Amino acid sequence: MSSSIKEQIELANQLAVQRMMESDPVWEGVGIARETIPNMREFMLLHAGPPIEWARMSGPMKGAVIGAILYEGWATDEDEAHKIADSGKITFEPNHLHSCVAPMAGIISPSMPVLIIRDRKFGINTYSNLNEGLGKVLRYGAYSPDVIHTLIWIRDTLSRTLGATMSEVKEKKTGVAIKPIIAQALTMGDECHNRLNAATSLILREITPYMLSASIDKVSLYESYEFMNQNNFTALNLVMAAAKAMTLAAHNIDYCTVVTVLTRNGTDAAIWVSGLDQEWFVAPAPVPKGVWFPGYSEKDANPDIGDSAITETAGFGGFAMAAAPSIVSWVGGSVAYAIENTQKMYEITQTRNSNFLIPFLDSQGTPTGIDVRKIVRTGITPTINTGIAHKNPGVGQIGAGLVAFPLELFKAALKGYAQRYGI
Amino acid sequence: MSSSIKEQIELANQLAVQRMMESDPVWEGVGIARETIPNMREFMLLHAGPPIEWARMSGPMKGAVIGAILYEGWATDEDEAHKIADSGKITFEPNHLHSCVAPMAGIISPSMPVLIIRDRKFGINTYSNLNEGLGKVLRYGAYSPDVIHTLIWIRDTLSRTLGATMSEVKEKKTGVAIKPIIAQALTMGDECHNRLNAATSLILREITPYMLSASIDKVSLYESYEFMNQNNFTALNLVMAAAKAMTLAAHNIDYCTVVTVLTRNGTDAAIWVSGLDQEWFVAPAPVPKGVWFPGYSEKDANPDIGDSAITETAGFGGFAMAAAPSIVSWVGGSVAYAIENTQKMYEITQTRNSNFLIPFLDSQGTPTGIDVRKIVRTGITPTINTGIAHKNPGVGQIGAGLVAFPLELFKAALKGYAQRYGI
Repeated sequence: MSSSIKEQIELANQLAVQRMMESDPVWEGVGIARETIPNMREFMLLHAGPPIEWARMSGPMKGAVIGAILYEGWATDEDEAHKIADSGKITFEPNHLHSCVAPMAGIISPSMPVLIIRDRKFGINTYSNLNEGLGKVLRYGAYSPDVIHTLIWIRDTLSRTLGATMSEVKEKKTGVAIKPIIAQALTMGDECHNRLNAATSLILREITPYMLSASIDKVSLYESYEFMNQNNFTALNLVMAAAKAMTLAAHNIDYCTVVTVLTRNGTDAAIWVSGLDQEWFVAPAPVPKGVWFPGYSEKDANPDIGDSAITETAGFGGFAMAAAPSIVSWVGGSVAYAIENTQKMYEITQTRNSNFLIPFLDSQGTPTGIDVRKIVRTGITPTINTGIAHKNPGVGQIGAGLVAFPLELFKAALKGYAQRYGI
Repeated sequence: MSSSIKEQIELANQLAVQRMMESDPVWEGVGIARETIPNMREFMLLHAGPPIEWARMSGPMKGAVIGAILYEGWATDEDEAHKIADSGKITFEPNHLHSCVAPMAGIISPSMPVLIIRDRKFGINTYSNLNEGLGKVLRYGAYSPDVIHTLIWIRDTLSRTLGATMSEVKEKKTGVAIKPIIAQALTMGDECHNRLNAATSLILREITPYMLSASIDKVSLYESYEFMNQNNFTALNLVMAAAKAMTLAAHNIDYCTVVTVLTRNGTDAAIWVSGLDQEWFVAPAPVPKGVWFPGYSEKDANPDIGDSAITETAGFGGFAMAAAPSIVSWVGGSVAYAIENTQKMYEITQTRNSNFLIPFLDSQGTPTGIDVRKIVRTGITPTINTGIAHKNPGVGQIGAGLVAFPLELFKAALKGYAQRYGI
């Protein structure tokens, strides 16, 4: 490789992380997917990870698809839902092709409410769905009547409460800025992927005054507050959509070797690289090493699933584990491991984040801007904090843990890069 | 000292920390001082620290006394307030003699609302006032009309909102348990004396559902939520009253050398020892080393003031600095210093707290149960995180910092102990 190309890459990568750090995503509103997400249409289901057809989908994703079909009323029972899913009538597309991200199976159907995030700096919109809570929930592949009931309540009550709240917010300002919330949460023991206790608290503190001044009936107000309050993952989908905005800001820069998507659909893991458009580099998704809910073990686990690794792509989550020593009781490992892991991630990233600081490392910025070249050179792969789904449809979450993205993905991407740029 | 006395002391100290850790303070309600605090009466003002007469009071305490006199309507202007304060008409008594604690000047007047904490384990009640926010506030010695106006709003609106909220709480449970909030906050970057961002968030999350279901008009609800939400010290007075309950549970144990009160009135610093009843050991209060608000420096600073060192007495605050690396930007020092300081406090304490864990030290319990003997033996004195008041009345807060309690206090206490127990 000539030194001028090396310089070009360096400049491109610098620009990428600069844009990632300048990105300023604010939560602006709530909409209905089909009316809000670009190119979303009837009989389309968005999903986590790279493209996949029904036949190859993992158990939890199939479960979530069945649930979404029942929720949409496209079928009235499980058998019929199976048939429709298999009939070709439904178009399956990755969230990432719609500036969207969603945790675990990540199924978004046309009538689901979605969070609207706007990057004030670069004018891009991104989206996510509303978090349903823990345990037996659609995103982990559960689809029993109570799961569907919660989704309906989210559509009819929670999303309307939040819609009215966000209208109040918009009277006063452009929206709820998410980066300062992530930054503060990192000083409060969160890494903002698998621990969001502080981020959820801060979001609630931020929006509650607007909830109180909005015109919302007392029951909806109470139920909506309690639903979000009882779920420390309430903030997850917001920070994911914000991370999607940050990484989109770094995407599509010529010569850039920075990773802008890390994602998995429960069957395959995949990445995008900034300088390689929307080309998917794909490898089998690994099974996370986990801390298991009682009665479950690794043999029950589905391979890694979800768009949530967008948090690590944007420089937090697993990359900020040193900020969250309590996370180790949830995903396994020791405090020393958490620090060591963050330290290792500096070896495969472009810079230290100027927004996201780790108090325990004397307020050093988090490792940010994953560089494909550095991964291939060092053999160190990105560590992701993740939830773990049962491999069968209909069960739900069985644990949480850590997973390393497969090295071969990054090797394939570097090969693709060499071909594309004729190096 | 005979070995049997040593054993007796060891048993007494073990019992003291066991009781301190078993204490289970819950926030149970809000009352008016004169109707709530035992032996509180008209023309009595409670104050922080050991007993002190008007003439010897420091600037900020005098300022707070003037403010309280104006608030009570005992005088209509500053001059008249001065005269009354000096007339002997007002009885000044330490909060600690009334199972009460309050930050900084700690002035509590008869018509002020107070928080009621009940120790579910030992049946003791403790009290504190409601936090007024930062800057120009009574507890820092300010008494301008806006300060008094806020106190009146606290009495007429906030305390009623909280009263109605606590009535809702009491329909469902005995109260809001404070220890789990402190324990969680220590995993979220608080040390719960000078950083209470997480504790305040958690308290708000805990009470908001009850606020929403109580019968409170919309304006009071909004104003009260926002007032507490805008002040990350909202939780301080609650955790202080809880700490008072914990330390009272350890008080009055024969032979016990554990410190149960550390406090200062801005002129003197003082301690109680469990085995020595309510005997005050007193020495001049030191001036904290601080981080100064713009325009101020050490020469403006009043000597250390407030009952808030009850947090360190109960095993958190400065003793848990290693849990709160972000605190160093507020009180000065480095992360390494914060860890080193917590480590040092183990040398002067009886045990590791079974409730309060420090995630970053692999979830080791905080140093708990300050032992007078160990302080005198090692020369290490308790480190307190504290706010700093201007030395003149009427100004307010000018910084925050660290202060070490004077060694001579503990030497005097050990001497008193030897006399009392004939050792």
